[in-house]
Amino acid sequence: MKHSPLVQGLIDAFTCLPGVGPRSAQRMAYHLLERNREGGRHLAAALGQAMDGVRQCERCRNFAEGGLCPVCADSRRDQGQVCVVSSPADVIAIEQSGEYRGRYFVLLGQLSPIDGMGPRQIGLDQLEEQVQAGSINEIILATGTTIEGEATAHYILEMVAGTAVTVSRIAQGVPMGGELEFVDGATLAHAFRGRRPV
Amino acid sequence: MKHSPLVQGLIDAFTCLPGVGPRSAQRMAYHLLERNREGGRHLAAALGQAMDGVRQCERCRNFAEGGLCPVCADSRRDQGQVCVVSSPADVIAIEQSGEYRGRYFVLLGQLSPIDGMGPRQIGLDQLEEQVQAGSINEIILATGTTIEGEATAHYILEMVAGTAVTVSRIAQGVPMGGELEFVDGATLAHAFRGRRPV
Ligand SMILES: [Zn+2]
Ligand SMILES: [Zn+2]
Repeated sequence: MKHSPLVQGLIDAFTCLPGVGPRSAQRMAYHLLERNREGGRHLAAALGQAMDGVRQCERCRNFAEGGLCPVCADSRRDQGQVCVVSSPADVIAIEQSGEYRGRYFVLLGQLSPIDGMGPRQIGLDQLEEQVQAGSINEIILATGTTIEGEATAHYILEMVAGTAVTVSRIAQGVPMGGELEFVDGATLAHAFRGRRPV
Repeated sequence: MKHSPLVQGLIDAFTCLPGVGPRSAQRMAYHLLERNREGGRHLAAALGQAMDGVRQCERCRNFAEGGLCPVCADSRRDQGQVCVVSSPADVIAIEQSGEYRGRYFVLLGQLSPIDGMGPRQIGLDQLEEQVQAGSINEIILATGTTIEGEATAHYILEMVAGTAVTVSRIAQGVPMGGELEFVDGATLAHAFRGRRPV
């Protein structure tokens, strides 16, 4: 005996979620069918609306439902200060830190020629236009420390060379409140090289 | 800054899934929006179809899309042998063991008067009809070893008393291939009391 077709279809569909294999997918399907059909219908509606209604901000490529995302639409934010990140999830992480008052530019990827990700695919032509138009004073690179993140940062540095835009990079090192023993070796080495007098 | 309304709505909706808190819900929403909108649309459709299209088998209360579930519709299964379980997920677990060739009766719950779960709420009137009609030769109780599972089993035993139906209970004990040190004390105690000569 197998699951009935609609149940099997639902289990298969759940495996598109990150970290969800066949067993958790089956648990999710049975949970909703047995205990919470209203929740399941609500999730179906929310998914449909978000997949079709969430677009990209015209200025920064972040998630947006109108033309501009909430940050670009906020006149109290410094619109001349631009933090470049890889993904909308990075924006949320930085916003939750409460520190930053500029705006963002969201690449939705990293430079990775072998994966077909060139400068245009991650919107760098659009960022260059904004640099040329003189609307950016400062770029803060937060593209991460992977090989692709480093390549992306390097590309932007070259793009901005010769303009009045200042470029900085967020500091890398040991996480605040983290136990040293749980920090990986590369991060520790980087933290030592970047040591500062106190 | 907060998530835009559709994104926040999707994150909230994901928390109806078992084991999914706000952080994993956010990860799921961003994953689909950034990387797999087609998968998100497909999940929405599968959810909608399953929540509305999956009903209960007329004979055994298992999930079914027509009148009868696949087991009750299968003439090669012994329709006079009935295994009583709490949930459709239990049916799948037993089917996957490949051992059983009878049919099921699915309570969709357990007797629990303080939660408003009486005999009718878990379909025991329907099971009693089938017993009275003489269509059942044997009942196998697999309602679990919780207090509610025991109460349910006890109720069915009394219901069947005086009829020709034989009643048995699936064996309880140490899981096959399980390391003894990971088995809980109550199960071990039960396994000792139920020891058999070899
Ligand atoms: Zn924006
Ligand atoms: Zn059935």
